[in-house]
Amino acid sequence: MRISSLAAEAGLPLATVKFYLREGLLHPGLASSATQASYDESHLHRLRVIRALTGAVGLSVQQTRTILGLIDDPGADLYSTLGRAVSALPPAVREASGDDDPHPRARAALEALGQVYDPRYAAVAQLESALEAAEAAGMPISAERLLEYGRRLHEIAAFDLERMPREPHAAVEYTVLGTALYEPVILALRRLAHQDIAARGLRGEGGAPEPR
Amino acid sequence: MRISSLAAEAGLPLATVKFYLREGLLHPGLASSATQASYDESHLHRLRVIRALTGAVGLSVQQTRTILGLIDDPGADLYSTLGRAVSALPPAVREASGDDDPHPRARAALEALGQVYDPRYAAVAQLESALEAAEAAGMPISAERLLEYGRRLHEIAAFDLERMPREPHAAVEYTVLGTALYEPVILALRRLAHQDIAARGLRGEGGAPEPR
Repeated sequence: MRISSLAAEAGLPLATVKFYLREGLLHPGLASSATQASYDESHLHRLRVIRALTGAVGLSVQQTRTILGLIDDPGADLYSTLGRAVSALPPAVREASGDDDPHPRARAALEALGQVYDPRYAAVAQLESALEAAEAAGMPISAERLLEYGRRLHEIAAFDLERMPREPHAAVEYTVLGTALYEPVILALRRLAHQDIAARGLRGEGGAPEPR
Repeated sequence: MRISSLAAEAGLPLATVKFYLREGLLHPGLASSATQASYDESHLHRLRVIRALTGAVGLSVQQTRTILGLIDDPGADLYSTLGRAVSALPPAVREASGDDDPHPRARAALEALGQVYDPRYAAVAQLESALEAAEAAGMPISAERLLEYGRRLHEIAAFDLERMPREPHAAVEYTVLGTALYEPVILALRRLAHQDIAARGLRGEGGAPEPR
C-alpha cells in the first residue's frame, strides 16, 4: 500500500508517519518507483507498537527508539535484553547511590518471597521507593500482606511468561507491551474488585452477599 | 508539643505545617496561651496522611482537601463515600460522554467476571481506556487472561477488605492510602516476579530451576 493508505489504516496523520520514517523508528518501504514506496503489514504492525509506546505508555521518541532497538536486535542474552527493555519503561527510578545497601526494604521483601534480588533491575528501586512511601505514611506493608500480594502476582507473572512468544523479537515486544499496557488493567481490576466486594458486603448492610 | 517540634517530627518545614493549618487541612492545636498551641499524635498522624497524598500520590492541595473531607465526614453511606474517595485518586479519567454505552469493553469484562458494573465509579472508565489501549496496540486482553488477572486481583482485594478498619473515618483513610500507596508495590512485584521466573528459566538455558 502507499504511505497515505498506511497512515489512514494506522489512524495517524501522514506527517507523523513521515516523521517516524525520517527518525528511523519505522523501516523504509519497498521502492516501487523513484518517488514512491510500498508498505505492508509489517509497517502497520510497527506503527501500532510506536503509537502504543508514545501514546498510552507515554514514552519520548528517544525512549521509544531505545525500546525499538532492543526489539530489533535482542542479541544473544534474551534475559538481559528483556531486563533492559522493561527497565526503560516508566516510572523512572533514581539511580542507586553509593550506599552499601541502596535497597534494604526491597532486598528484605524479595528474600522473604524467595525471589531473585538483582539491584541493577529498575523494578528493585521502584519497589524500594514504593515500600518507603507506604512506611512513611504509617501504612507499612506487613509480612503477611507481602506474601499474599507476592504469591498472587507471581501467579499472574507465570501466566504472562507462559504466553511469551519463543521468537526473540516477538518476545521483547510482548514483554514491553504486556508490561506497560496491562499494568493499568491490573490496577483498575483491583479497584473494581474492591468495589465488587464492598458492594456485596457494605451496601447489603450485613445481609448475605448476592449470588455471583 | 509545640508546632516546631511537630514539624520536626513530621519531617516537614515549619512553613509547610503553618500552610496546612491556614488551609484547614490540619486541625488547630489546643491553645496553651494567647500565642501558643499544643499539638499531639493526632496532628502528627494527619501530617503523615497529607504528606502521602501530596507527595507519593501526587495530589494537589485541592484534591487532598476533598479526600480529607471524606475521611473527616464519611457520612452514613460508607460504600458511596469509599467510592467517591477512590474516584478522587489518580489517574484522572475522562467523563463518560452521552453515549448509550460509554464503557462497552469494561462492561463486558465485568460481566465475564461476574462483578458489579457501576459506570459512575471512576475505575470503570479507567478499565475501559486500559482495555482500549491494549486493543489498539494489537495486544487485546484475551478472555483467558481477563479471568486469570480478575481472579488473582479479587483475591488480593478480598485480603485488603478483610483488613479494613470497621470505624468509618479509619476505613476511608485505609482505603485511600491502601489503594494509592500499594498500587506501585503491586506493579513492582509483578515486574520482579517476571524477572524471577525469567532468571530461572531463560538464564538457566533450559536447566532445572534453582531451589526456592
